[in-house]
Amino acid sequence: MTNFDHFFSADASVMQPSAIRQMAKLAFQPGMISFAAGAPNVDTFPAAEIADIVSSVLATDGKAALQYGLTLGFGELINAVSEFCALKRIRGVTPEQVAISSGSQQALDVIGRLFIDPGDAVFVELPSYIGAISAFRNLQARLIGVSQGEDGIEISDLISAVERSRRDGTHAKMVYVIPNFQNPSGLTLSLTKRQQLLEVAERYDLLIIEDDPYGEVYFDETLAEKRVAIKSFDRQGRVIYLSTFSKILAPGLRTGWIVASDKIIEKLETAKQSMDLCGSTLDQRIVAQCWRRGVIQNRLPEIRSFYRSRCEIMLKSLQHSMPASVRWTRPEGGLFLWLTLPQGQDSETILNACLEANVSYVVGRPFHVNGQGANTLRLAFSKETEDNIHVGIDRLARIFKSHLE
Amino acid sequence: MTNFDHFFSADASVMQPSAIRQMAKLAFQPGMISFAAGAPNVDTFPAAEIADIVSSVLATDGKAALQYGLTLGFGELINAVSEFCALKRIRGVTPEQVAISSGSQQALDVIGRLFIDPGDAVFVELPSYIGAISAFRNLQARLIGVSQGEDGIEISDLISAVERSRRDGTHAKMVYVIPNFQNPSGLTLSLTKRQQLLEVAERYDLLIIEDDPYGEVYFDETLAEKRVAIKSFDRQGRVIYLSTFSKILAPGLRTGWIVASDKIIEKLETAKQSMDLCGSTLDQRIVAQCWRRGVIQNRLPEIRSFYRSRCEIMLKSLQHSMPASVRWTRPEGGLFLWLTLPQGQDSETILNACLEANVSYVVGRPFHVNGQGANTLRLAFSKETEDNIHVGIDRLARIFKSHLE
Repeated sequence: MTNFDHFFSADASVMQPSAIRQMAKLAFQPGMISFAAGAPNVDTFPAAEIADIVSSVLATDGKAALQYGLTLGFGELINAVSEFCALKRIRGVTPEQVAISSGSQQALDVIGRLFIDPGDAVFVELPSYIGAISAFRNLQARLIGVSQGEDGIEISDLISAVERSRRDGTHAKMVYVIPNFQNPSGLTLSLTKRQQLLEVAERYDLLIIEDDPYGEVYFDETLAEKRVAIKSFDRQGRVIYLSTFSKILAPGLRTGWIVASDKIIEKLETAKQSMDLCGSTLDQRIVAQCWRRGVIQNRLPEIRSFYRSRCEIMLKSLQHSMPASVRWTRPEGGLFLWLTLPQGQDSETILNACLEANVSYVVGRPFHVNGQGANTLRLAFSKETEDNIHVGIDRLARIFKSHLE
Repeated sequence: MTNFDHFFSADASVMQPSAIRQMAKLAFQPGMISFAAGAPNVDTFPAAEIADIVSSVLATDGKAALQYGLTLGFGELINAVSEFCALKRIRGVTPEQVAISSGSQQALDVIGRLFIDPGDAVFVELPSYIGAISAFRNLQARLIGVSQGEDGIEISDLISAVERSRRDGTHAKMVYVIPNFQNPSGLTLSLTKRQQLLEVAERYDLLIIEDDPYGEVYFDETLAEKRVAIKSFDRQGRVIYLSTFSKILAPGLRTGWIVASDKIIEKLETAKQSMDLCGSTLDQRIVAQCWRRGVIQNRLPEIRSFYRSRCEIMLKSLQHSMPASVRWTRPEGGLFLWLTLPQGQDSETILNACLEANVSYVVGRPFHVNGQGANTLRLAFSKETEDNIHVGIDRLARIFKSHLE
C-alpha cells in the first residue's frame, strides 16, 4: 500500500508537521549562523557533574533506576518540585498536586487530552508557542488568538473573544499563556494583567494553562516581584502551572512538571498510564539528585548571566545595524526576541536570501493562530557566540535593508 | 473548585485507572510474594555495564546527549533497530521505517491516535494486554474480543467478528495481537495462524498491530522457525510491528520501537512532535551504545535461561500443588502464565484471602474486553526467587483448594 489515508483518524488528518522543526533541520547546515534553533545552549549543561551523579545513582540504586517507575514520577523529584515551587512563591504545593512529564511538551499534550474536545475554544496569545499550538490543534481545538501589548495579553480583547465564542455556542475552555519572556515574543505579562487574567478565568469559568519554562532565566533580579506566578494567586484550582528543567539543566533529560489541583493530577495519572506507563526513571533520578546536591540552584546565576550577555549583544547589534523601520522587543529573560518588519513585508520570502547568506531565523506566521504575522520573525540569542551574533545580525540587517528600500 | 467534571473531555470521561497498576501498588507490601508485578527482574539489568557506558557517552558526547534530539529517535539507535530486525528475520527495514518511542506504551498510544476515531472497531485477543486495552479505550475505540486457542487467536471467530462489525456499520480498523508468549496468557500464535491472520487483514482491509515485547525471551531455540514475525510476510505495509528493549535490557531506559511503512512513520513523526518533541536522548544513546558493544546481544542467552528456569519451577510447583480442576498454560517464553479456575469461581473474591496470606496475582477480568474471565488470573514468574515461587504457589494452592471444595 502506498496510501493509508482511509485508515487515519480525524485527529491525524488535521495534523501538520511543525514549521519550526522543519526549519530547525535547515539551521544545522555547516557555517550557518542560527538564530532559529530555540534550544538552550549546550555550554550551559553540566555534563561532568551529571556524569558524576549518574555513576553514584547507578552504583547505589542501579536496579530501581533501571526498572519501571511510577506514572506520575519519581517521589524525590516530586518533592524537589514542591520545594522549587516554594522558592518561586507558589506556596503549599503538596506532592499530590505534582506530576512529572516527559518535558513540557508531554504536559501540554496530556492536558489537551484531558480537557479538549473537538471544537472547544482555547485562547492563546498572538503570537504563541508553536508546540502548544500543535498539541491543541492536533486535538481539534478551536484556537482563538488574542493580541498582546508590551505588557502581555490584552485583557479586554480576551474578554471580547470569550464572549464572542460563547455567543457562537463554542465551549470556551481555557486560556494558554506564557507569562515570562514568552516564546516567541520575549514579552512578559505585567503583574496587574496576571491578576486580571485570573479574574477573567473566574468570571467566565475558564482554566488557565500557565506555561513557565523560562521563569528562572531572568536578567534582572529586582523585577522578581512583578513576575509572581498566576498560580500563586489561584484559590479555586483554575490554574495549571507547567515548568521544566530543560532550560536550567538539560532538555535531553526529559523532565517537565505540572502543578494542578489533586483532582486533575488524579485524572492525569490515568491518562498518562496509557500514554507511557512512566517517564525515564534514570533521567528523573539524575535530576532529583542534581536538585538535592544543589547543582540546579547553584548554577542559576551563571545561566542567567550567560543568556543576559547574549541578549544584550544582540540588542546592541540590532540597534547598531537595523534600518529604522524595523522594531524588536527587549526581553527581560528567556532565549528569544521578536522582530517586526514594516507592514507588507514577508519574513518568509526574505528568509531564502538569509539562508543563502548563512544566517537563519524562524518566520513569525506559524506562531499566529489567526494566519497573520507575515512581517514578523523570531530571533533566538541562545545558540551563537557573541562574535557570531554580531556577524549574523549584520548580515540580516543588510538583507532587510535591501528588501526595505 | 472541587469538581472539574464539566471541563474534562469526552476521552477523559471514559478513562479508567488501570486495574493492574492499582493492584501493583498492593503487591509491594513487605513480605508479599508477588506473582502480580509484570516487570522484568531487576537482577537481569546490567547496571555496571550501563554505568560504564554512561560515563563514556557523557565524556565523549555529553553535550549532544543532554540536548534535545530528533522526534523519531537517535540515528544510531534507529540503525541498531534495523540490524535487530534483520536478526529477527524482518528483512529490508530501512531507517525511514523505524521510530523510537518512550517504551511500547507510547507506541500503542501514538498508533491509537493516528488510527482510532471514536467508535472504530479494534479486535483484540481474549485476554489481551491491559496497557493496549487502556490506550485504545481512552481513544473511545470499540474493543471487540476474539477468543484464543492453545495456538492463539481463533481465525474463524475473528472473521465472524469483523463481518458482524461491518454489518453494524462500524469501521473495522485493526487487529491487535501479541504473537509470542502473550501478556497475559503466555500463549504463542502458531505459524499457520500468523499467515492466516495476514490474509484476513488483506481480505478485510485491516491493519495488524503486532506487539512483540517478549519475542527474544524464548525458552527453546529450536522453535524459532515457528515464531517468524507476521511483519516478515507483510508485502502491503499492513503490519505495524512493535518491540522494546525493556525486557532484554532495562525498562527504565524508555526505549520501545515501531517498524511500519514510511508513510505511517512520517505521520507518526508529526503526531509525536506534539506529544513529547523527543524521547530521552541520554537513554537512547545508552541503549545504542549497549547494542554497538554487544551488551544486549550477548546477554540474551542468560536472560532466556533466567526466565526459563523460573517458569519451569512455577510449572513444577503448580503440577505438585494445584487441585485437578485448575488449569494453566505452558509458555514457551516471556514472563507470564495464565491460570483458569473452574467455571463459577471468581479470582477477584479469592484474591483477598491470598493477599492476607501474603501472595498476590492479577485477576483475569480486566484483560477481557468482553467482561468475562472472572475465573482466570495471571501469574508472573519474573519477580520472585525460586524458593519464593515454591512457597507462593503452595500458598495459592491451599487457598484455591479451600474455595473449590
